[in-house]
Amino acid sequence: MTRDSAGEPGADDGDSVVYDLAPDCTAEDVETGRSYLAEINGIVDYGVFVDLSDSVSGLVHESVLEGTYGVGDELVVELESVRENGDLAFEPVDVDDYALETVSHDYSLTGTDRLEATVGEQIHLEGVVTQVKQTGGPTIFHVADENGVVPCAAFEEAGVRAYPTIEVGDVVRVTGTPEHREGSVQIEVDGLSKLEGEDAAEARDRLEVALETRAEPHDVEPLIDWPAFEKLRSDLEEVAQLLRRTVLEGRPIRVRHHADGDGMCAAVPVQIALQRFIAEVHEDENAPRHLIKRLPAKAPFYEMEDATRDLNFALEDREKHGQQLPLLLMLDNGSTAEDVPAYETLAHYDIPIVTVDHHHPDPDAVEDLLDAHVNPYLHDEDYRITTGMLCVELARMIYPDLGDELRHVPAVAGLSDRSKADAMDDYIDLAAEEGYDEDRLQDVSEALDYAAFWLRYNSGDQLIQDLLQVDSDDEERHRDLVDFFADRGREEVDEQLDAAMPHLEHETLANGAHLYRIDVENYAHRFTYPAPGKTTGEIHDRKIEETGDPVITVGYGPDFAVLRSDGVRLDIPNMVSELEAEIAGGGVSGGGHLVVGSIKFVTGKREEVIDALVEKMAEADIDEALSSAAPIDD
Amino acid sequence: MTRDSAGEPGADDGDSVVYDLAPDCTAEDVETGRSYLAEINGIVDYGVFVDLSDSVSGLVHESVLEGTYGVGDELVVELESVRENGDLAFEPVDVDDYALETVSHDYSLTGTDRLEATVGEQIHLEGVVTQVKQTGGPTIFHVADENGVVPCAAFEEAGVRAYPTIEVGDVVRVTGTPEHREGSVQIEVDGLSKLEGEDAAEARDRLEVALETRAEPHDVEPLIDWPAFEKLRSDLEEVAQLLRRTVLEGRPIRVRHHADGDGMCAAVPVQIALQRFIAEVHEDENAPRHLIKRLPAKAPFYEMEDATRDLNFALEDREKHGQQLPLLLMLDNGSTAEDVPAYETLAHYDIPIVTVDHHHPDPDAVEDLLDAHVNPYLHDEDYRITTGMLCVELARMIYPDLGDELRHVPAVAGLSDRSKADAMDDYIDLAAEEGYDEDRLQDVSEALDYAAFWLRYNSGDQLIQDLLQVDSDDEERHRDLVDFFADRGREEVDEQLDAAMPHLEHETLANGAHLYRIDVENYAHRFTYPAPGKTTGEIHDRKIEETGDPVITVGYGPDFAVLRSDGVRLDIPNMVSELEAEIAGGGVSGGGHLVVGSIKFVTGKREEVIDALVEKMAEADIDEALSSAAPIDD
Amino acid sequence: MTRDSAGEPGADDGDSVVYDLAPDCTAEDVETGRSYLAEINGIVDYGVFVDLSDSVSGLVHESVLEGTYGVGDELVVELESVRENGDLAFEPVDVDDYALETVSHDYSLTGTDRLEATVGEQIHLEGVVTQVKQTGGPTIFHVADENGVVPCAAFEEAGVRAYPTIEVGDVVRVTGTPEHREGSVQIEVDGLSKLEGEDAAEARDRLEVALETRAEPHDVEPLIDWPAFEKLRSDLEEVAQLLRRTVLEGRPIRVRHHADGDGMCAAVPVQIALQRFIAEVHEDENAPRHLIKRLPAKAPFYEMEDATRDLNFALEDREKHGQQLPLLLMLDNGSTAEDVPAYETLAHYDIPIVTVDHHHPDPDAVEDLLDAHVNPYLHDEDYRITTGMLCVELARMIYPDLGDELRHVPAVAGLSDRSKADAMDDYIDLAAEEGYDEDRLQDVSEALDYAAFWLRYNSGDQLIQDLLQVDSDDEERHRDLVDFFADRGREEVDEQLDAAMPHLEHETLANGAHLYRIDVENYAHRFTYPAPGKTTGEIHDRKIEETGDPVITVGYGPDFAVLRSDGVRLDIPNMVSELEAEIAGGGVSGGGHLVVGSIKFVTGKREEVIDALVEKMAEADIDEALSSAAPIDD
Repeated sequence: MTRDSAGEPGADDGDSVVYDLAPDCTAEDVETGRSYLAEINGIVDYGVFVDLSDSVSGLVHESVLEGTYGVGDELVVELESVRENGDLAFEPVDVDDYALETVSHDYSLTGTDRLEATVGEQIHLEGVVTQVKQTGGPTIFHVADENGVVPCAAFEEAGVRAYPTIEVGDVVRVTGTPEHREGSVQIEVDGLSKLEGEDAAEARDRLEVALETRAEPHDVEPLIDWPAFEKLRSDLEEVAQLLRRTVLEGRPIRVRHHADGDGMCAAVPVQIALQRFIAEVHEDENAPRHLIKRLPAKAPFYEMEDATRDLNFALEDREKHGQQLPLLLMLDNGSTAEDVPAYETLAHYDIPIVTVDHHHPDPDAVEDLLDAHVNPYLHDEDYRITTGMLCVELARMIYPDLGDELRHVPAVAGLSDRSKADAMDDYIDLAAEEGYDEDRLQDVSEALDYAAFWLRYNSGDQLIQDLLQVDSDDEERHRDLVDFFADRGREEVDEQLDAAMPHLEHETLANGAHLYRIDVENYAHRFTYPAPGKTTGEIHDRKIEETGDPVITVGYGPDFAVLRSDGVRLDIPNMVSELEAEIAGGGVSGGGHLVVGSIKFVTGKREEVIDALVEKMAEADIDEALSSAAPIDD
Repeated sequence: MTRDSAGEPGADDGDSVVYDLAPDCTAEDVETGRSYLAEINGIVDYGVFVDLSDSVSGLVHESVLEGTYGVGDELVVELESVRENGDLAFEPVDVDDYALETVSHDYSLTGTDRLEATVGEQIHLEGVVTQVKQTGGPTIFHVADENGVVPCAAFEEAGVRAYPTIEVGDVVRVTGTPEHREGSVQIEVDGLSKLEGEDAAEARDRLEVALETRAEPHDVEPLIDWPAFEKLRSDLEEVAQLLRRTVLEGRPIRVRHHADGDGMCAAVPVQIALQRFIAEVHEDENAPRHLIKRLPAKAPFYEMEDATRDLNFALEDREKHGQQLPLLLMLDNGSTAEDVPAYETLAHYDIPIVTVDHHHPDPDAVEDLLDAHVNPYLHDEDYRITTGMLCVELARMIYPDLGDELRHVPAVAGLSDRSKADAMDDYIDLAAEEGYDEDRLQDVSEALDYAAFWLRYNSGDQLIQDLLQVDSDDEERHRDLVDFFADRGREEVDEQLDAAMPHLEHETLANGAHLYRIDVENYAHRFTYPAPGKTTGEIHDRKIEETGDPVITVGYGPDFAVLRSDGVRLDIPNMVSELEAEIAGGGVSGGGHLVVGSIKFVTGKREEVIDALVEKMAEADIDEALSSAAPIDD
Repeated sequence: MTRDSAGEPGADDGDSVVYDLAPDCTAEDVETGRSYLAEINGIVDYGVFVDLSDSVSGLVHESVLEGTYGVGDELVVELESVRENGDLAFEPVDVDDYALETVSHDYSLTGTDRLEATVGEQIHLEGVVTQVKQTGGPTIFHVADENGVVPCAAFEEAGVRAYPTIEVGDVVRVTGTPEHREGSVQIEVDGLSKLEGEDAAEARDRLEVALETRAEPHDVEPLIDWPAFEKLRSDLEEVAQLLRRTVLEGRPIRVRHHADGDGMCAAVPVQIALQRFIAEVHEDENAPRHLIKRLPAKAPFYEMEDATRDLNFALEDREKHGQQLPLLLMLDNGSTAEDVPAYETLAHYDIPIVTVDHHHPDPDAVEDLLDAHVNPYLHDEDYRITTGMLCVELARMIYPDLGDELRHVPAVAGLSDRSKADAMDDYIDLAAEEGYDEDRLQDVSEALDYAAFWLRYNSGDQLIQDLLQVDSDDEERHRDLVDFFADRGREEVDEQLDAAMPHLEHETLANGAHLYRIDVENYAHRFTYPAPGKTTGEIHDRKIEETGDPVITVGYGPDFAVLRSDGVRLDIPNMVSELEAEIAGGGVSGGGHLVVGSIKFVTGKREEVIDALVEKMAEADIDEALSSAAPIDD
């Protein structure tokens, strides 16, 4: 519809305004019931032909004409009808006295939210280019406006880049026709131009405002009322905003998460929330599959190998599909100094990094490298607020409809990481309302652990969703599968411990704590479930139960040791630093939490390193309140 | 053609039956030479228009009309001609006295076997939905009837699921038009409805009968006459029936086979037979590639890791392509208790499992988990009937045209597994008829072994087919390649044994048997061909030849030992059980055949376990007839 | 245009030659301004219809006709006009006396270089079939003529092989119409026939001549003037010719290169040169991606596993895409006896192998297996001419426009391999002209090493191009990335050496050389950067610097040792042979250069092997000039 200063529709019926179409006006600018100034350009038996603009002309039939007309005469007409073939018929309007108002061509914009309604009609659209993909045929520009992202196909010559000066990030005006194409609405481009100067600035401001508004996270009530969580809420909202914005900008998201129970309880809800939001935003139906990928990380930090691989894939996707480089979302992982080299590798490219983690962070080391960082330790809270708990809320902020499916997930996350959070009871009650008793929650946690081990580097989307009963609809299978995997995992733990326990070396330290050592290379099965970290943890748990006393457990292999303690005031990161300095050629490194962690060394110095470590442990104070009930990463 | 009770074509020429089309009849129901009751609904200069049903009408030209007619009058007519544009012309029929018979609309079905002949015509089809794949454009329903499976494309809106209530397994009636599409005949759907109640039951019964009939295995004469095989024949026929049925139902098949000579001699023929049958059944030309996949398994049992990976792929294929979950076909693998955890994992999903194996089975453990199980031990036969021998016959039951290509394969299978079957001579004679002397057969077997090692987790389809000379047509290359791989393999065995033999420890046991021990971790090359199992086997073979006496050979690494024996009455599964009980913290497990097998333990207890094992071996009776000439799985 | 003996265009205006079209002539054979003999075959009110050949006929309008004509009369006409619908109009020509010349149908060929200009017109083309791909629709024949390769789509029936007797390698004549299709020009085939006998021989000769001409390498001036290089120049030209010819013939190329700095400096330029040449030759825009693949090889020789994998992929590509088997291009790898088994595996298939390497070759072992072999040692030069230096020139011979991007690459290659070539100064000067000082070149080299380690089996195309600043356009990122990777790599080397150096065992040999031994399994971190080879090399370098004396360094693991020496006249290949003979059951193998290399053995004989080796080293002469500054392959 034409917009001009003459007023709103309804105000212009039969009044004395006559419109004068600008030369670039098209038939689209002609409104029924309005009077237009026309010029006669041809006279035939059955009427006269009139021009309203360069491209708008039509017939006034002799039956409605009165008087005589010559070519070049002016005539005030209004639209009578549009024939099927697009021909226009006008009829004369009898006005003596009128005000003439010029009508500019209507370049008013059609938002991506109204494309379905305008299929087959030429429209205009303004937005930011988010992807430029050269196909064998047309060039596909993905353009994001205030409402969504739409692929726009421009054809220059087969396989030849159309509009070669237009790049990702440019603000453009697209003129074209929305069409259905392979399940998506796509715009067939008639014209595409980059906005410059003020136009661009104005459009960019408008889009920015809209984007920020649209990116705003949903204001959801947390599943439970929990003061400790409130401290982190605004941080999470910032991440939700950032992730929603990333989706709106058409940038892919790559999720790397810790491959354990809590990590999966964190990553799966966020993945599903983002997929649903992507589906809502993007006209391209393959977008949810192409724009988000979840990948488990085996190590408790972001390894250089993974970073190199991620970068490699990202660069290839940019090369092949013209995609933007992705945002990296680290979940239940990524807060520590060990992540720095990998982060620095990516920092050379336009790859924002966002981390939600509950492992003890090294904020000084990572803060500069992160676009957002959520970690309970940054707010005087600790690992007891697990990443899974945080991410369930994050998922709901991103896409709140997901809420009901997720009510049991924080409890699983908490049990997986043995969280002693005061909120655990509430979470367990919440899960109970959904029919999950504590045993089943524990089973889900064990089952996730077991499945993650065998999936190795695969995300195993459907299987994990079946185990976690999220975006999965066969309740019975879920139950059976959880039972089976949990039982199976426990059996294999038992087998492992049957082999290992007789080889446990025990001593009572000077401080009275029990020290148990186990050589997991020689006295546990290798390359099978449970891995050394979990094996050590399980041994430790049994010994705590058995003794009730302060216990330290060390599980060591050729060049590493896993440490767990309860009731002893250890400071493992500090011990590692001391050992590093004290033992020349020991190649000591490592870390973790205060009372639980791991340490690496060169094989040939194992005995010396472990002996020195034990000596330090013997000097630590007893503090029965301390517990290593945190995730052990193997 | 219309079917009714009036009789067969030929009986209705010029007789006094006049047909009355039911209102839903279409032009398809009108037959030349038959008289139909029509009603005049219009009169024009050049004739009268008549209606035969709601949608069948046409002109009776004035030139063939006599008398006067009024609108609404009845007229008996027969079809004169069908114009190019589909218009019908009728001519009056002069009948005074006639019997009126109602004609129902012909919903008679066109089978998938007649689609090529009906391209471009509307047809009806009934069948079971085997796959529902949502594409970016139409929804593709794969429908199986008595004769085959055809993709049916239904378009609702681009990327929108058509007929959303229709699911895999439903019996449906499809009305549509067969068209060529990318090498397949595909039906463009005009209508698709789920049959309910009696209709569905009837159709299902009809399809079931047809399916069972069509699934019936071919009744082929075994390649050789062999009483022992006869015992297994009906079991194999059952498997052939099940596999053919699986193909007819459009369910994918995933083959996991032991990655050795016998395993490949088993899996390759079955793979090719199924591919050819799939090509015959499915209109979709990509079906053979999409519906069957062969994968070697490194371990002598179905590992949890493989099962998790298989499940993961299956769930993804269901998600992405709407495929049914697959049938798992275990070949030369899968009969033992060690397979149970993996089987149980799959049991939670609709994944039937079929096993053809000749390793010593644990029927009690696996039987409940298998849909079919063929194993010579279940019929008082043993490993000498190798899986390759069985599967060549299975392949011929599935697709008999394959027969001639396979005549040399059982001999290769037998030699690979050192089968001492009485049928070996016949198999070797059969191979000789095809130009394979025993040396070449042995070379093929060695070459397969060598290639399998380097292919690792790849199936290497074409290379293996070239080596096995099945579905491969360059005889000379086959010969050269076999020579080269066999020689190369032997050279590497020699190199390995050059290193290992000097480190062989010998002792004579109390029962007089020679015991040879070799530390394959320290005295053989690692990560290269031959692997520890084959290294041990080759050492054993040389020692038997050298001594002629009863020999036991133990090849051990850090946490495993491979055992072979000849002439000693061992019961390895029993020994393993005893060791498991006797050695606390030994982590002992394992098994195999009676006189050949392997054992695992924790590294730190290796010496104790092996010493205890040797003690037991020393007590075993000598029995020169016993041979470990069975496959050693490394 | 029709060609005949009557002379050139211009000679035939208005002269007395009248042309008689042969019956198979088409409208294409009719030239404006020429006189043709026609026969009247119809007379109508408005003129007469004439036939010029079986398929050429048209109207002579009555307005231009004089006199009376009868059907069957001859008439001399010339073309008046061609209507939009293709109808021809002729006008009579008044000639009394003329010479009649027969015109044959013009089958003159249109080269693939003129397809764009003939889109939409029927043309003829002769060439060799390079690929036959059966799609679901048409069969695609890729046909190479003197100028390029074009896909020709022939449709028989959907998914059915058209012209089933035509195979790769046949010389064919294609009649068809060039059309744009998915970014490529493709010929829609009207007819395709195999040339036989003399025609084929003639065409093949013509194509061969053209191919050889077109394959000719560019005659580029080497980047620097270097007499030593001149000896290898013609060998490289031969390889350039062979590779260009391979591209022209449409055969894929698979590059396997040493995964170190020099290997990447060699492979990346050649890859890019070939990609650009492929893009130029092939009409199919995906050809550069489909026809060349670069893969790093971890071992310093072509492993059986890689060869089996390469063969497997090649056979699958042939099966799925009808591609020819590839040419294998070995770079910075492939000259030694260790490559023979892998080469022999491929030798059974049509896979030419070309090697450019600067490691000490075993020409007797490999020569028969290679189609071309460039190695400085074959011309009394040595490793100091690095493969990267050679391949930069090779790349320029293949595609000279690449020259300017590559001017810094030889210096990187040389520094990576510590080349002491006299040309190094010139190369470094050349790089300096491009703004690379020696520190930065060294950094690039270190960065490549570090990236290669983490990329593992991935080629990492874009990342490596960014590091090497070839086909990459962000100078600043290049610099930052190189700095970061180089620093990071050095840090990790330092960490490794901090652990290792205190465990270095030192002794002074009888010949006065320092011997350093390091147990890299026990005193270095495993599975991390730097790997054992580089660790040993770095230790060695430090010790040379420290002592200034002749130094030998041995880094050993469980079953291998890496050897480096400076200033000692070692002959490592000979030592390995002696040890192999002397130490029974040692499983000794290995080799390398004279003064640098590696050795393998069985774990259990490590001490004995290394002691014996040291003994031999102690007897070696001191020769300060000798340096192990050659690539150490780990």
